[in-house]
Amino acid sequence: MRPKLVLFGDSITEESFGDGGWGAALAHHFSRSADIVLRGYSGYNTRWALKVLDRAMDGASFGEPPAAVAVFFGANDASLSDRSSGFQHVPLCEYGTNLRAICSLLKDKWDSTIVILITPPPIDEDGRIQNPYGDNPSGLPERTNEEAGAYAKACVAVAEESGLPVIDIWTRMQKFPGWEKLFLRDGLHFTSLGNRVLFEEVVRKLKDTGLSLETMLVDQPLFYDIDPKDPLKTFCN
Amino acid sequence: MRPKLVLFGDSITEESFGDGGWGAALAHHFSRSADIVLRGYSGYNTRWALKVLDRAMDGASFGEPPAAVAVFFGANDASLSDRSSGFQHVPLCEYGTNLRAICSLLKDKWDSTIVILITPPPIDEDGRIQNPYGDNPSGLPERTNEEAGAYAKACVAVAEESGLPVIDIWTRMQKFPGWEKLFLRDGLHFTSLGNRVLFEEVVRKLKDTGLSLETMLVDQPLFYDIDPKDPLKTFCN
Repeated sequence: MRPKLVLFGDSITEESFGDGGWGAALAHHFSRSADIVLRGYSGYNTRWALKVLDRAMDGASFGEPPAAVAVFFGANDASLSDRSSGFQHVPLCEYGTNLRAICSLLKDKWDSTIVILITPPPIDEDGRIQNPYGDNPSGLPERTNEEAGAYAKACVAVAEESGLPVIDIWTRMQKFPGWEKLFLRDGLHFTSLGNRVLFEEVVRKLKDTGLSLETMLVDQPLFYDIDPKDPLKTFCN
Repeated sequence: MRPKLVLFGDSITEESFGDGGWGAALAHHFSRSADIVLRGYSGYNTRWALKVLDRAMDGASFGEPPAAVAVFFGANDASLSDRSSGFQHVPLCEYGTNLRAICSLLKDKWDSTIVILITPPPIDEDGRIQNPYGDNPSGLPERTNEEAGAYAKACVAVAEESGLPVIDIWTRMQKFPGWEKLFLRDGLHFTSLGNRVLFEEVVRKLKDTGLSLETMLVDQPLFYDIDPKDPLKTFCN
């Protein structure tokens, strides 16, 4: 049985199998070693994620604990409460509590599973103003980078107190000059390059926890291990 | 539990989650409805596929029959026996027998599962000459379009006699002028456009068998069905 790597998150996860997406890139990278299981729910915050966690994970485990679950929420929680996406907002303190609950529920369900937290990404406010969701007469962005940063810090804190690995994509992306347009296509969702950054971070983090191409079994003999003079010999075991 | 759609094939399947790949496009299309399970084995022909079928499908079903399995072999079987990839060659008659056996084994395992056959793709011989596998002192392509066409016809015949749906991608691609370079990047494997053609054919064929976004359940409430004034109400059921 191939190990399963479950991606549990919001729209940045749901769209991760689109062109150049980080989920598809993981499935390609692990094409003979692991199944990447997509559980992305566009628009969801941690409050709603908690409500669906059990049902969302049913069928994601396929009878045995996944090797890893990446939990990637916060971008919607960090919507400003008094702006156009206010109904997705979750207060910072509750975000931390919800994240802890999500991790506990996953660990209660599958104690051997590695839970990896991913912080919300940075926000390019100009990109959000240029790409509003529906009417936005105020002309103000419904998310700010400062607010996303506070949620990212809270996510890192939850990971540290729980002893879980974390990818601080908010900080990581901002190390690159021009990150605003380079990595974010509408100020929030990823460009191909942004997807690439997250993909590489996930691969690195999985490797830190012992899950890499070098350590995982290959499903069925590789072509180059098949003896051209006697191919069927390879399949006799 | 989301239905599973399993992709069982050779390198064109194994690489189908790469950039613009048809597998990733299916996972994106069905991102809230179905799990796309990748079982691609680069270089494999039907003879080797038969040897690994049981183990390859273990863990692909996750305890319940997949909704559909796409079986996409033949490109390697159709390698010419006296050229540089000769050890992958499987005689035409045996190819048909093997395909029948693969379908029978899948149906024996899961009688409710829809098995969809996909013919080998057309071959651009110039592309194969320009992109040889290793040394090819003869300068001749190791595959020809005519030979691939014979295997495609055999695949269609197996589907018809077994009453199974089939995608004749060999014929379909050749309806487009310039298919050689438009759809094939090395005379055999797909460009992004080639991937798109197969993706659309698979979506159409799945729809014919009753598997479409219109008929499949959505996993958890969609964002636009959540009442902004009372979001949690949606999750009370």
